[in-house]
Amino acid sequence: MALVEMALSRILIRENSDQQVIFLKEKGGEGRTFPIIIGVFEAVEINRKITEVETPRPMTHDLVRNVLHGLGAELVRVVVDELKESTFYAKLHLRHEGEEVVIDSRPSDAIAIAVAEKAPIFVDETVLDEVGGQTE
Amino acid sequence: MALVEMALSRILIRENSDQQVIFLKEKGGEGRTFPIIIGVFEAVEINRKITEVETPRPMTHDLVRNVLHGLGAELVRVVVDELKESTFYAKLHLRHEGEEVVIDSRPSDAIAIAVAEKAPIFVDETVLDEVGGQTE
Repeated sequence: MALVEMALSRILIRENSDQQVIFLKEKGGEGRTFPIIIGVFEAVEINRKITEVETPRPMTHDLVRNVLHGLGAELVRVVVDELKESTFYAKLHLRHEGEEVVIDSRPSDAIAIAVAEKAPIFVDETVLDEVGGQTE
Repeated sequence: MALVEMALSRILIRENSDQQVIFLKEKGGEGRTFPIIIGVFEAVEINRKITEVETPRPMTHDLVRNVLHGLGAELVRVVVDELKESTFYAKLHLRHEGEEVVIDSRPSDAIAIAVAEKAPIFVDETVLDEVGGQTE
């Protein structure tokens, strides 16, 4: 499995739409990029993490982070590792007491948490091949 | 700290409103009840957990549960333990390797997870006194 490091390069938040779009872009190399359709709640949360807007109370993605910290786990990286029937699949790779624990996640949740935790985001090369990531 | 066990007795989901309402009701005793205002996303998720509607991919509250299970932790109970300036505060009480770990949470997130995990929901007696929980 070859992993390609990506950055979250763009979020499009459209009012009155259930579907929002984020773009991941290859950090090095050719700068390949592709969109992922996500929900409005997750898009707002990712945007909040990027702009580092603090909320008075923990939002649901902060709760995930608080659980990780409270149980002594650390988010090492996020990997978008599969594309099946137009749905992207992702994993949280955690370190917990010296062991790696892998948790199934939607890419939107994984990316919201990765942005807040400043953890790297990877995409499997096979997924990048499938989406035919265009350079800009 | 005296804890009173509550059940989620009602959810009001109103279209086109940012504020939704859930009601907690005392399981025994006088059957005192009070409302908590929550966000629409959390209300939809709580409703999904109650009706046991499965989604093809894990929603954000399922991700919290998957992290708990993946790290060998269990949700023992949820406690709504404070009311400050009209905001309710809650805690997740987890068991992790024989120790109790307490995580700060909004009541909406805590209740969504408690319903799915079939964990009991408690309210501190002092909070119940403050809201003046009416019997129905």
